[in-house]
Amino acid sequence: MSTPHLGVVGLGVMGRNLALNALDAGNDVSGTDLGEDAVRGFEQEAARPVTATTDIGAFLDALPRPRNILVMVPAGPPVDAVLGTLAPKLDEGDLVIDGGNSHFPDTQRRHDEMAQQGLHFFGMGVSGGEEGARLGPSMMPGGPKAPYARVAPVLEGMAAKVDGEPCVAHLGAGASGHYVKMVHNGIEYGLMQLLAEAYDLLKRGAGLGNQRMGDLFSQWNDGELRSYLVEITADILHHPYTVEVDPDEAPGDEAPPEGMTGRYLLDYILDTAAQKGTGKWTSQDALDLGVPTPTIDAAVTARYLSALKDERVAASDLLGDPAGRAPGDPEDLVDALGDALLAAFLVTYAQGFALLKRASDAYEFGLDLGTVARVWRGGCIIRADLLETFREAFRADEDLPNLLVAPVVAEKLIGHRGALRRAVGLGTQAGIPTPCLSTALAYLDAYRSAWLPANLVAAQRDYFGAHTFQRTDQDGTFHVQWEPAGL
Amino acid sequence: MSTPHLGVVGLGVMGRNLALNALDAGNDVSGTDLGEDAVRGFEQEAARPVTATTDIGAFLDALPRPRNILVMVPAGPPVDAVLGTLAPKLDEGDLVIDGGNSHFPDTQRRHDEMAQQGLHFFGMGVSGGEEGARLGPSMMPGGPKAPYARVAPVLEGMAAKVDGEPCVAHLGAGASGHYVKMVHNGIEYGLMQLLAEAYDLLKRGAGLGNQRMGDLFSQWNDGELRSYLVEITADILHHPYTVEVDPDEAPGDEAPPEGMTGRYLLDYILDTAAQKGTGKWTSQDALDLGVPTPTIDAAVTARYLSALKDERVAASDLLGDPAGRAPGDPEDLVDALGDALLAAFLVTYAQGFALLKRASDAYEFGLDLGTVARVWRGGCIIRADLLETFREAFRADEDLPNLLVAPVVAEKLIGHRGALRRAVGLGTQAGIPTPCLSTALAYLDAYRSAWLPANLVAAQRDYFGAHTFQRTDQDGTFHVQWEPAGL
Repeated sequence: MSTPHLGVVGLGVMGRNLALNALDAGNDVSGTDLGEDAVRGFEQEAARPVTATTDIGAFLDALPRPRNILVMVPAGPPVDAVLGTLAPKLDEGDLVIDGGNSHFPDTQRRHDEMAQQGLHFFGMGVSGGEEGARLGPSMMPGGPKAPYARVAPVLEGMAAKVDGEPCVAHLGAGASGHYVKMVHNGIEYGLMQLLAEAYDLLKRGAGLGNQRMGDLFSQWNDGELRSYLVEITADILHHPYTVEVDPDEAPGDEAPPEGMTGRYLLDYILDTAAQKGTGKWTSQDALDLGVPTPTIDAAVTARYLSALKDERVAASDLLGDPAGRAPGDPEDLVDALGDALLAAFLVTYAQGFALLKRASDAYEFGLDLGTVARVWRGGCIIRADLLETFREAFRADEDLPNLLVAPVVAEKLIGHRGALRRAVGLGTQAGIPTPCLSTALAYLDAYRSAWLPANLVAAQRDYFGAHTFQRTDQDGTFHVQWEPAGL
Repeated sequence: MSTPHLGVVGLGVMGRNLALNALDAGNDVSGTDLGEDAVRGFEQEAARPVTATTDIGAFLDALPRPRNILVMVPAGPPVDAVLGTLAPKLDEGDLVIDGGNSHFPDTQRRHDEMAQQGLHFFGMGVSGGEEGARLGPSMMPGGPKAPYARVAPVLEGMAAKVDGEPCVAHLGAGASGHYVKMVHNGIEYGLMQLLAEAYDLLKRGAGLGNQRMGDLFSQWNDGELRSYLVEITADILHHPYTVEVDPDEAPGDEAPPEGMTGRYLLDYILDTAAQKGTGKWTSQDALDLGVPTPTIDAAVTARYLSALKDERVAASDLLGDPAGRAPGDPEDLVDALGDALLAAFLVTYAQGFALLKRASDAYEFGLDLGTVARVWRGGCIIRADLLETFREAFRADEDLPNLLVAPVVAEKLIGHRGALRRAVGLGTQAGIPTPCLSTALAYLDAYRSAWLPANLVAAQRDYFGAHTFQRTDQDGTFHVQWEPAGL
């Protein structure tokens, strides 16, 4: 039997690392790139001989049929350019995998176009960053089921492992792979902003220093909150004031500027966070599908607010900076925050999984949410011990409407939601903005409210727009001539 | 000089009411519709002779050149169908106005297609509901400037008047009219949800009855909060338990069902609120443009949550219903809420106007925000005394980055934000979800925070994705080898 063979198009950092990972996993690997340097770099880093060439024809000739080709180029027009070059040269049954962060409607279009040419196409989300790509990412392929079996050994060899199980699986049809990765990133936005709010509450609300805060996150990471993002938050808080810079641009004096007392790098990082679109796409599609994901939405808009640095500085002059110490013993806030974060994390994941459920129906992906949870247990940015809990929840009830009502999740929520309420209350009093903690609490409270005041909204819509309403005591659709409001 | 003439295509409720309004304002009016009944209905309701016909050719022949035609058909394919029928029959220089709730990208496309055929096209938002259309709406036309002068007398005659000024103006280029109407509706979603949350806080948090609550909204409507939506909320709360139904379906007994004690209609309205897309479009475009509109977003997702009635009932069984009385004297909540609403209203309008500012730049609309505020002062659903304040604010500084930093607005905010903080705090403690009040407070506090914890988010992104960060003490772009987190 021949060794499985993977061809990689695009040998930038992510492509090269995935190619080297595949090689380490015992596969034959070929690589191509338009740049001679990228090709030579791959060749030199490879532990075994590889085919590495800028000649796409030679690259394709070297691949055994049917071919398995992983495309790692920037999302957008480059993907279409590569597919346009490849498709005429491929043979029926060849498989092309787009491993970039493509927007799922593009993936669906490409999937359909390739299928018309007798070619298989996967959109595959890859999470774990550069290091994950090299050592073991989480991979989320979606597309036709048939060709998966043939690349499964390659992908499973490359993927992160948790309890011996690889963090990869065929997730579903069409663009499901990129859709799942998009929602992964939406959840990632939510978790990151929740951690930033916890940091802010500890820093400005409780007056803690970086060392103590780092210790706290580290301690939380030893408990139920154990997760990659909590772990790196501890690392970041502990990171000393040093920075690698271009030697030509290295400042003469690395000491903190006058008036600054911190000796931690974090204190010198500008408080504006950029974004690349996947969180925004998640919110936009959730809005299209009618699925509430307010914590993810708030995380995206929190980044937008962070970017308005100049406006914020000007507004703080005019309106006064809101933040101060939380009332009472600072340790009350410290005590509440770990549990508060756990409850808010649960809510954020629940919003993401509820979106996946609706999307799977709407787009006919055929997702198994327990499998998604399994694939997210390792390698990816939102990996956390909680994913095993979610996997159990979906294994017990694959039709679960929302993770919040899974008994294993509900139990945790009931134990931790009081802390979330206390943390939000203290943050509110301290003037520290907590958009994601607040929306997580509001979502939890609204989702478990048998009654909500939307009857008033329904009445208002009927008042000014004759949109009609339903009644609790009678069937049918009703319209009332409300009192005229005198225009 | 001849009388201005308006042709109306589509004589449903909105089209007929606008046509009758134009007639009352002294214009000649012609109308056409595919339905004989609609045409006869218009003819009969008209106070003076009109041209009313199902024959589109006869309708067009009756209009003096250049023609002014208002199209009032449902948004979407019907608009394209009408334009496709009209365009070949029109003459150069004719003006077609789409007065429906079209999505602005459709309007921009139609604008461009019509221009290629030498025809003028306005997308025009119309707000005020059926009654407003008949008696005086707010109208938001956008498109080419040149033909506006010729329809201005017609539109100004039809529009609501405030202090003698008509609530209509040429707002800007391209699809600006429908864009402004979309944002109007986004703000409307926010205000409606804020009012629903205030109602919930009064009802479940303070234990007030409908009569007292209606009195409170009525009282608030006599002060700084004076606005259409506050006024109708009072009417709705006061509305007795009667309902107009189809005589064939009228129940035999109008008394409340057993076990229900309320004698107010609102108590029998189902707590699910529908939506028709304009709020969602606002959030989606704000996300595309990078403008934070979290209160509008939360209002849209609150409607989605309301729609999950069955899930909510099930979750309340498992997780317990969260809501109860707020701690302390109920009158504390009552006292805080009026001012809290005012602060939250200010924030919601500010988000909408900030979106308009960015959109005007991005899409080259050339909006004057003071004119938008003027047009919204009367006739439309979000009309409020505050609009005069906003108009003043933009008159004083047309480049205002955000309404929150206009001195006239800042003064109100400083006086009312403490109440917003108290209301959110009490709601949080009471377990009453306040997604919009909370995000309004979070937005206000974040916007006036010179520093935000986004430095942590920037560090996280650099940690796992090598996305680089900026520093506060050095120029440039930096990347650090953070501690490895062990994948």
